[in-house]
Amino acid sequence: MFENKERTDIAELGEFGLIKHLTQNFKIQHESSIKGVGDDAAVLDFSEQQVLVSTDLLLEGIHFDLAYVPLIHLGYKAVQVNLSDIYAMNGVATQITVSIGISSKFPLEAVEDIYKGIELACNKFNIDLIGGDTSSSKQGLVISITSIGHAKKEDICYRNGAQEGDLLCVSGDLGGAYVGLQILEREKLIFLENPQIQPDLEGKDYIIERQLKPEGRRDVVDLLAQLKIKPTSMIDVSDGLASEILHICTQSDKGCTIYEDKLPIDPVTYETARELGLDPTVCALNGGEDYELLFTIKQADYEKLKNDVDISIIGHITDKNSGCRMISKSDVVHELKAQGWNAFKK
Amino acid sequence: MFENKERTDIAELGEFGLIKHLTQNFKIQHESSIKGVGDDAAVLDFSEQQVLVSTDLLLEGIHFDLAYVPLIHLGYKAVQVNLSDIYAMNGVATQITVSIGISSKFPLEAVEDIYKGIELACNKFNIDLIGGDTSSSKQGLVISITSIGHAKKEDICYRNGAQEGDLLCVSGDLGGAYVGLQILEREKLIFLENPQIQPDLEGKDYIIERQLKPEGRRDVVDLLAQLKIKPTSMIDVSDGLASEILHICTQSDKGCTIYEDKLPIDPVTYETARELGLDPTVCALNGGEDYELLFTIKQADYEKLKNDVDISIIGHITDKNSGCRMISKSDVVHELKAQGWNAFKK
Repeated sequence: MFENKERTDIAELGEFGLIKHLTQNFKIQHESSIKGVGDDAAVLDFSEQQVLVSTDLLLEGIHFDLAYVPLIHLGYKAVQVNLSDIYAMNGVATQITVSIGISSKFPLEAVEDIYKGIELACNKFNIDLIGGDTSSSKQGLVISITSIGHAKKEDICYRNGAQEGDLLCVSGDLGGAYVGLQILEREKLIFLENPQIQPDLEGKDYIIERQLKPEGRRDVVDLLAQLKIKPTSMIDVSDGLASEILHICTQSDKGCTIYEDKLPIDPVTYETARELGLDPTVCALNGGEDYELLFTIKQADYEKLKNDVDISIIGHITDKNSGCRMISKSDVVHELKAQGWNAFKK
Repeated sequence: MFENKERTDIAELGEFGLIKHLTQNFKIQHESSIKGVGDDAAVLDFSEQQVLVSTDLLLEGIHFDLAYVPLIHLGYKAVQVNLSDIYAMNGVATQITVSIGISSKFPLEAVEDIYKGIELACNKFNIDLIGGDTSSSKQGLVISITSIGHAKKEDICYRNGAQEGDLLCVSGDLGGAYVGLQILEREKLIFLENPQIQPDLEGKDYIIERQLKPEGRRDVVDLLAQLKIKPTSMIDVSDGLASEILHICTQSDKGCTIYEDKLPIDPVTYETARELGLDPTVCALNGGEDYELLFTIKQADYEKLKNDVDISIIGHITDKNSGCRMISKSDVVHELKAQGWNAFKK
């Protein structure tokens, strides 16, 4: 991965030198970041706002495969995955802490690449890096990020507020990240068998990017604020649409009906799923890693959203006893099940 | 490690089932914890207080060795290491998030043990567990904790406030955690050569406990508040006294003089270091992991602290040009160097 690049031994810098080196270009952008990297703890000030905190752990071999994930993309995605949780609360993300464990086989340039990706995400989404921890790892690459944000108390969207009759909405399109991963896995196998063959990713840019470089939907949070819509519940689609719908219904003590023909699936996702012998609907329901926002709105808000091409209304909330159902294109009723990603499956 | 115990496969529970199972006994104790585990992000409310955030990553084979670290102690220590950073800001620690990556070889009972230790620490130090992430790991055990706390703006102690003439103080005693580790390492080697030999830890309880079960010094923060002393700078002793003194002096743009005969070293630490052929002073200066608090106070505060047996005054702050020096018992001047723990040394 770094054969032709310059290699600097991380041990030369030591832990404090490494942190300083990696974080020196990060600028503090928020008034709430009173003190960032360089003391025992960061100091933040959010007067009259509630603070939002979320954390994610990414492990090599479980959450990513360095055979096809470029390190810059990995850094970028690690941040996005975290910010997405803050947006899913209808909040403003403002700070992150980043802890990294790195194999001693990694040269400094590799860690720099990860931090370049982190920096890109921080700059694009207006985030301050305020702390972290850097260590050697005997066990492959480990990235742990905690994101911090804020919101007014009355603006925060929990998962438990969906009411009967509310409309179920989802941003963007679904299944792309999963189908993109299948393509990357296929090309990896081909490469392992014959390293001379170049990967065939033609026409797959969109879904490869959905997998490698997802974007947290801050724009959707902004749009909802502009339209003066406060969702009654919200969650981000990390494990798969079906799993997330069940979280909202379980926590709100409700049921739902969604319609297969309303699920937003990009043509590239659809065609590639078919090529690979996969059902595009199953990819959309259970694929995960799309980092779109799933939310419920009152029917009274329908007029404000109905013409937005980026938001799909895929169904509605029902009473609990009706269960969680999907009506297929051929009008068959299916029970929704969470078959999303389980990190503990062997 | 779990040969004679019940074994439950974690995959049976899945990620959400596991988180629910592990966190169900944790009670929310703080009014500032508006929403804990169970949504995309935790929601906190600290009106008119500044928020403190710190994070640490603990990796198997780097930060701990499961050959001699009981999992309950590991969970307990992982929390303490984090709280210590909040106390080092003169803050009140209130919440933590815990992310864990676990080998699929681990049964549920092993993870439960880690969480028992986390729970003990939370209960003892009045901390709310408010979120986290749980994943399988192909790479050994990974624990990442982020701690959150608060303080009034005017009470926060940074590392950069030490002034010429200020007194350098340290709580408790030093070097014990390091010497305890040497004993554990010695007994591990003996065990590997001959598993029939029982470990010989007689009389070493104190230093073994210093290594396996350190305590964040919240009591020192409380004491300083009672005595109405605000340290001019403060840091916790995680990497070693010399390294921490140099952080304070560098960030405060000052020098210092400390006295070897003032360094607080417990008799068990002293005798055991000698047994092992180690210099007790070097252990105190460079051992690390003591999690005591190192701080500077104005000379005017001397009278308030001088009779406290738990606080040692080990030297004073000088101008920058005098450098950072230790006067030995035989009146020789040594330059202080950070030889603390470097996770990147090979």
